[in-house]
Amino acid sequence: MTQTHESKVYLVGAGPGDPELLTVKAHALLRQTQLVLHDDLVPEAILALAGPQAEIVNVGKRCGAKGISQEEIHTRMIEATRAGISVVRLKSGDPGIFGRLAEEMDALEEAGVPFEVVPGITAAIAAAASLGVSLTDRRRSSRVVIVSGHQAHGKKPLAQTDWKGVARDDATLVIYMPGHDFTAVRKDLLAAGLSPDIPAVIVSHASTPAQQQRSTTLGELSKLPGLESPAVLLIGRTLDAVHRRLSAEAVAAVLEEAAILASP
Amino acid sequence: MTQTHESKVYLVGAGPGDPELLTVKAHALLRQTQLVLHDDLVPEAILALAGPQAEIVNVGKRCGAKGISQEEIHTRMIEATRAGISVVRLKSGDPGIFGRLAEEMDALEEAGVPFEVVPGITAAIAAAASLGVSLTDRRRSSRVVIVSGHQAHGKKPLAQTDWKGVARDDATLVIYMPGHDFTAVRKDLLAAGLSPDIPAVIVSHASTPAQQQRSTTLGELSKLPGLESPAVLLIGRTLDAVHRRLSAEAVAAVLEEAAILASP
Repeated sequence: MTQTHESKVYLVGAGPGDPELLTVKAHALLRQTQLVLHDDLVPEAILALAGPQAEIVNVGKRCGAKGISQEEIHTRMIEATRAGISVVRLKSGDPGIFGRLAEEMDALEEAGVPFEVVPGITAAIAAAASLGVSLTDRRRSSRVVIVSGHQAHGKKPLAQTDWKGVARDDATLVIYMPGHDFTAVRKDLLAAGLSPDIPAVIVSHASTPAQQQRSTTLGELSKLPGLESPAVLLIGRTLDAVHRRLSAEAVAAVLEEAAILASP
Repeated sequence: MTQTHESKVYLVGAGPGDPELLTVKAHALLRQTQLVLHDDLVPEAILALAGPQAEIVNVGKRCGAKGISQEEIHTRMIEATRAGISVVRLKSGDPGIFGRLAEEMDALEEAGVPFEVVPGITAAIAAAASLGVSLTDRRRSSRVVIVSGHQAHGKKPLAQTDWKGVARDDATLVIYMPGHDFTAVRKDLLAAGLSPDIPAVIVSHASTPAQQQRSTTLGELSKLPGLESPAVLLIGRTLDAVHRRLSAEAVAAVLEEAAILASP
């Protein structure tokens, strides 16, 4: 399956976190490779699938003071392939959606290093599946819009996102890296004409045992708690049923807690 | 992994066509299930992965006069689970993106039949990966917009799509089921303010041996040939490099053909 006679860089999507949501191809590459360079958000359960011969290196940006620069990642990939080693560059979700794939392909192309992109299940799709939601719906949603809460260099807040054309009643909006403060996005989406009763659901660690979700409406969005990364915020009419279900569950949980507190 | 003790319906994404781009979970479910109900666009190479015990039924809409209605698909799923059989309802790409997932979940919920959505690699992501393109790019594309060339019931033409907010220089637009005539979409996107030099690439049968792609610019879009289904049309600045490469290849192919014709 893989061209073992030619060393190259596989830019591989690790999917949302559940090892069973890796592609068959990503799974096979992980088992065979000698070097895995992975981002922070790839969970241990997926790294554990690499073969015993594999060196596994976290090149994530959150390693604190010892942070590895993007240029160092490029150098590491290029040097390994020149030494005859095939590299699995493992990125959470799909590498082509907010995965800095373009920079890495450019660096490899410039260095004359062969590469191949292996797609993965991106967080929007995994979160929707885990909630039992269809991102499009002939009756309610004719488009999907994927944006990031943090723009280039990870610092531009949602408030500076241009919502023109996103605020549509018939779109499902998915915000990656939504952060923890939704005051600005609420204000902007309402100002752009979206109805305050449109449901909004935040999902953290989609597809994994650590998955959490909270539901609200656009009107109440500023009260929604931020959840741990990786998280996505979904806004749209297709979330109506899941919002009703999650709201009912939240009420039931509060009532149960109250009953426990009230019991003698 | 799968709950074999409770029969349920797995609404499964078959991915773009390459069997290696199935998820590990979809692959395992296919091997174990007794009944596969699949859409037309799922290729033989994927159906061949089902175990020998599996009954495989094409419930696609293109079976000509013997077309199966959406209601018949629901009935079939409900009756099978009530008979104690777990069903794999296999849809090309991801079931939640233009896959009529919502209707089928509603029918199952109403019938009290348990179901689970298993996400798949959608065509936009597979096409981009196969081209070596990142759908987002910190320098060129801050959002991805996924729309359909055919709206509800498959008949509303692109000309009737509302392009407001889609025509942005910093968005990657992916049109599913783009059809064969791009005159109207070209006119509308230009009228909405998009530059005529923005690249457009159509990809058919992404990830499979039958994959084909053709490249042009928005200004020349009406001359682009439609390609066989399944196809997606990608429009955006992130396609600059692939457009240059495909254009050069097309020129080389024409020159080669001319040389053959000119040779004695």
